[in-house]
Amino acid sequence: MTPVSPQPSEELSRMPGTVNHPYDVRISGGRVVSTFTGEEFAADVLLRGDTVAGVVPPGTPAEALEEVDAAGMLVVPGFVDAHMHIESSFLTPQTFAALTLARGTTTVLADPHEIVNVAGADAMRWMIEAGRDTPQTQLWGVPSCVPALEGLEHAGAALSAADIDEMLGWPGVIALGEVMDYRAVVADDARMRGIVGAARTRGVILDGHCPNLSGAELSAYMATGVDSDHTKNRTEVVLEKARMGMLMMLQEKCLLPEVIEALRALPQLPPLCLVTDDLAADHILTTGHLDHIARVAVAAGLPAVDVLRALTWNPAQRMRLYDRGVVAPGKRADLVLLKGELADFDVQLVFAAGQVVARGGRPVYETAAGEAGALAGTVQVEEQTEDGFRWRVPALADGTHVFRAMRVNSRDTYTEAAEIALPVVDGEVDWEGRVTLVRVRNRYGRTDTVFAPLLGRTLSAGAIATTYAHDSHNLVTVGTSRAAMAEAARAVVADGGGVAVVREGQVAARLPLPVGGVMSPASAHEIAARSGEVRQALVGWGWEHLNPFMSVSTLTLAVSPSLKITDRSLVDVVRREPVGATVNTA
Amino acid sequence: MTPVSPQPSEELSRMPGTVNHPYDVRISGGRVVSTFTGEEFAADVLLRGDTVAGVVPPGTPAEALEEVDAAGMLVVPGFVDAHMHIESSFLTPQTFAALTLARGTTTVLADPHEIVNVAGADAMRWMIEAGRDTPQTQLWGVPSCVPALEGLEHAGAALSAADIDEMLGWPGVIALGEVMDYRAVVADDARMRGIVGAARTRGVILDGHCPNLSGAELSAYMATGVDSDHTKNRTEVVLEKARMGMLMMLQEKCLLPEVIEALRALPQLPPLCLVTDDLAADHILTTGHLDHIARVAVAAGLPAVDVLRALTWNPAQRMRLYDRGVVAPGKRADLVLLKGELADFDVQLVFAAGQVVARGGRPVYETAAGEAGALAGTVQVEEQTEDGFRWRVPALADGTHVFRAMRVNSRDTYTEAAEIALPVVDGEVDWEGRVTLVRVRNRYGRTDTVFAPLLGRTLSAGAIATTYAHDSHNLVTVGTSRAAMAEAARAVVADGGGVAVVREGQVAARLPLPVGGVMSPASAHEIAARSGEVRQALVGWGWEHLNPFMSVSTLTLAVSPSLKITDRSLVDVVRREPVGATVNTA
Repeated sequence: MTPVSPQPSEELSRMPGTVNHPYDVRISGGRVVSTFTGEEFAADVLLRGDTVAGVVPPGTPAEALEEVDAAGMLVVPGFVDAHMHIESSFLTPQTFAALTLARGTTTVLADPHEIVNVAGADAMRWMIEAGRDTPQTQLWGVPSCVPALEGLEHAGAALSAADIDEMLGWPGVIALGEVMDYRAVVADDARMRGIVGAARTRGVILDGHCPNLSGAELSAYMATGVDSDHTKNRTEVVLEKARMGMLMMLQEKCLLPEVIEALRALPQLPPLCLVTDDLAADHILTTGHLDHIARVAVAAGLPAVDVLRALTWNPAQRMRLYDRGVVAPGKRADLVLLKGELADFDVQLVFAAGQVVARGGRPVYETAAGEAGALAGTVQVEEQTEDGFRWRVPALADGTHVFRAMRVNSRDTYTEAAEIALPVVDGEVDWEGRVTLVRVRNRYGRTDTVFAPLLGRTLSAGAIATTYAHDSHNLVTVGTSRAAMAEAARAVVADGGGVAVVREGQVAARLPLPVGGVMSPASAHEIAARSGEVRQALVGWGWEHLNPFMSVSTLTLAVSPSLKITDRSLVDVVRREPVGATVNTA
Repeated sequence: MTPVSPQPSEELSRMPGTVNHPYDVRISGGRVVSTFTGEEFAADVLLRGDTVAGVVPPGTPAEALEEVDAAGMLVVPGFVDAHMHIESSFLTPQTFAALTLARGTTTVLADPHEIVNVAGADAMRWMIEAGRDTPQTQLWGVPSCVPALEGLEHAGAALSAADIDEMLGWPGVIALGEVMDYRAVVADDARMRGIVGAARTRGVILDGHCPNLSGAELSAYMATGVDSDHTKNRTEVVLEKARMGMLMMLQEKCLLPEVIEALRALPQLPPLCLVTDDLAADHILTTGHLDHIARVAVAAGLPAVDVLRALTWNPAQRMRLYDRGVVAPGKRADLVLLKGELADFDVQLVFAAGQVVARGGRPVYETAAGEAGALAGTVQVEEQTEDGFRWRVPALADGTHVFRAMRVNSRDTYTEAAEIALPVVDGEVDWEGRVTLVRVRNRYGRTDTVFAPLLGRTLSAGAIATTYAHDSHNLVTVGTSRAAMAEAARAVVADGGGVAVVREGQVAARLPLPVGGVMSPASAHEIAARSGEVRQALVGWGWEHLNPFMSVSTLTLAVSPSLKITDRSLVDVVRREPVGATVNTA
């Protein structure tokens, strides 16, 4: 910013009432993009305090204390993310804010589903408090599914309808987080009915999650008041949902050219929001946040002005924030200056509430991760030894038995139910050298432990352990030997939670997540570096997948087909039922 | 409705959970119009209580207690009017609801600007209470300008910022009514700053009124938080306002083909609302309410699907009503069934909150106008005699003086400042036989009285008197003789307020408005009939105008250029200053 040099012009009317009351900032020489009309127009933007006080013809006489040169730049509203989970970045709310403000994201509706599954209401309170310290507007949804599947897993907390109702009244809370257990909702399950009913009575936003739900079942789901979806749907289901009045939130994997083409062929473009859902810190650092999603949307064929509206005005409306989503006098001065064409979404300068918070992709304010506080020491397991990885099946006679196994692929989180014959000797499965083993161990002071063979990987000696494992975040260990598994689990426990990969008897990569076992106080750059090491170690081990770590952390995601594993059981996801380890034995 | 005959189909999935819990209503065989995608699609709509519980493929098995045959019909959301004044219909909230529900209007945001100028907070309370009795959702804005121009007129009440702040907290109140005194806002007038500031602090909607305001002044106005406009603007100002993020509300006179063409030529159609603003009962009866505005919009070139969105989803969003504006499961069962093409907006059947409230253009429920209560006896003037119409100017010497006069036209409410020489004899203007006279008499217990000559009409002997006269609703009488004026005023006072036209010494037409002097407990049909008689009598008298009564009732509208008359003074509207009766005398 430089001191303003007023450029009086006889032809332009002076801003009223400014002679003795100069503006704080004048952003001059840029072109504003209207999220109402899609037009780009030359205008100076005047700020006073946290508010846009004028959008005026260039050079309109008006004094300002500071001037920002926006020549060659586009001025657009700050980006608004109506569906996301901060924990997916491994960052705390404070460091997440710094990283993503630099990408233009000035407002988020965060559903702290992961950390609340770890530590319940305490975690919710911690997140809200942490978010208050940042220049980013962080608003909150109360996770609706804690645990994600009642009776099929133990999380660190269980929220009843009454708990959720109370939390919905907390300051900063505006939504019920994605109602993932859509099968329970459709089946009119009493607990989900209570939770959704509480949100409806409170009058908050009800966010959904219902991949490919359609027809009468979609009606039954929506009838409860849930009216958004951010999951990946078949193109015809995207259209059906939009037609039905469900607000479609499109994340990266949804932004396919055929989907965009189908949406654009409609008589009217429905209201759309672009959302990030789950993005890891290294992904954000290397490709971007909502700015990246915007570029993906443009590449998929959505016109840049529609992308901008889906990034600003539409999500602001969804979040019932009437003070943003458009560069307009009287609205909040959350502004992004872009270089080049709109379609590039190349973020240069970011204002939040009238203050410059990021420049050239980096925050310009000091930030710290905050204290772990109530979220320290959440990994409550006994010392991890090789003995803990003995898969004991005392009910089985010696001999060979056919066990259920999870077959993974290299593309997505689908796990196919498979079978494999393994010998049982002295009440213990003799698996080493035959299969990869998964063990899920409750890490909230219980002793529940479940084992299952994993097929579909050709691995060298090694293991991975993680306390970041959807949705209950128990201690998940996957490995080729008891020794390697114990080594990986020991490293994670020593770090107070996190991820560790062991290869050839050594810890090859380590991402400590001591905040609830899912977040880190480290900087985004450090987390990105360590995440990269985890990825490299996994790939080096032979764990081939487009998103290697995610394919581990979702082995436990029992709402995602088809055979998953929790601390209580193997789960037939489609039938929502626990199933036993063996196929041929009761 | 007829008992449902289920049409089971093996191919269609049964609505979940309905076996022991039938729906209340099935609307079958129609085509739903999506306000999200603009598509028409065959669907059955299931209602339970006040809510849409399903929008399902035709014939989906689901039991319902009653069935509504919608074959050949379109099912659309109830219409939402985001800016209007009930009093303009002369109806009470109850009879207004019945009349307009029959036209498909299920929700209104009413600004009771007229009646609150008459009776202040008591009137606001009366309106809100009255509205609660109806199946129409009536929500409220607190009038921001009571009186409309402080210091230039006496209304029946004066609302301070503190008064308005309190009323903004009342149940049913969601907005600050149109901030008409935009000049005061732009000039940072302390009173308007207080009023607008109170609304901003309360977080309610701030509605605007700023014809052709542009550039830096528009910025200054919007910077206070006002972000809508429903006035008629030049086409380029419509575009400027839309670009600037002002929500454009289009009433009939705004829906010009050139405006629609310009809006459609934009890269994006901005969010638009169709509104009625001021519609009289007879207009509604003969042409319609929002359904009529919709047809006007279609005729002006707006595609029917954009019209529908501007009639439903957009205004619902504006009003922050998340439960309507789309036919969708979980949303309120405010539904309109249309015959023929969408573009016809031919309303056949109307549901409000799941109940049929109108059929074939008529309400199907019993309604009454309610008791006048606090709004009875509001016309407080002495007995009306010929003496009261003597225009005394004691300060002037005998002889001829040049007086300011209002020259009216036959098209709109513009009044040109004119001059006319009139003789003064014994301190009294000798006007009979020379000009038409206007007298404005305070009717709230004060004695303020102002006279002015009126030019531009060739009238036979007669007069009109009215207590419906924007915005203060004092007693306005216009006539060719003292005798006729006294006769008309007497009739109005005898009726407790209203309108009376005198021709040839007889009351030729009479519209009693005993509720606050601006509304009637009579039926819409009676009011329409009497309004028609008033119009006919005016035209017969020689009062030629497109909207004869409005051209009388706005002679006092001192925010509308250029020379107007209040109970305190003639007013130079542009300069916002009182001006004297004479031109050549101080």
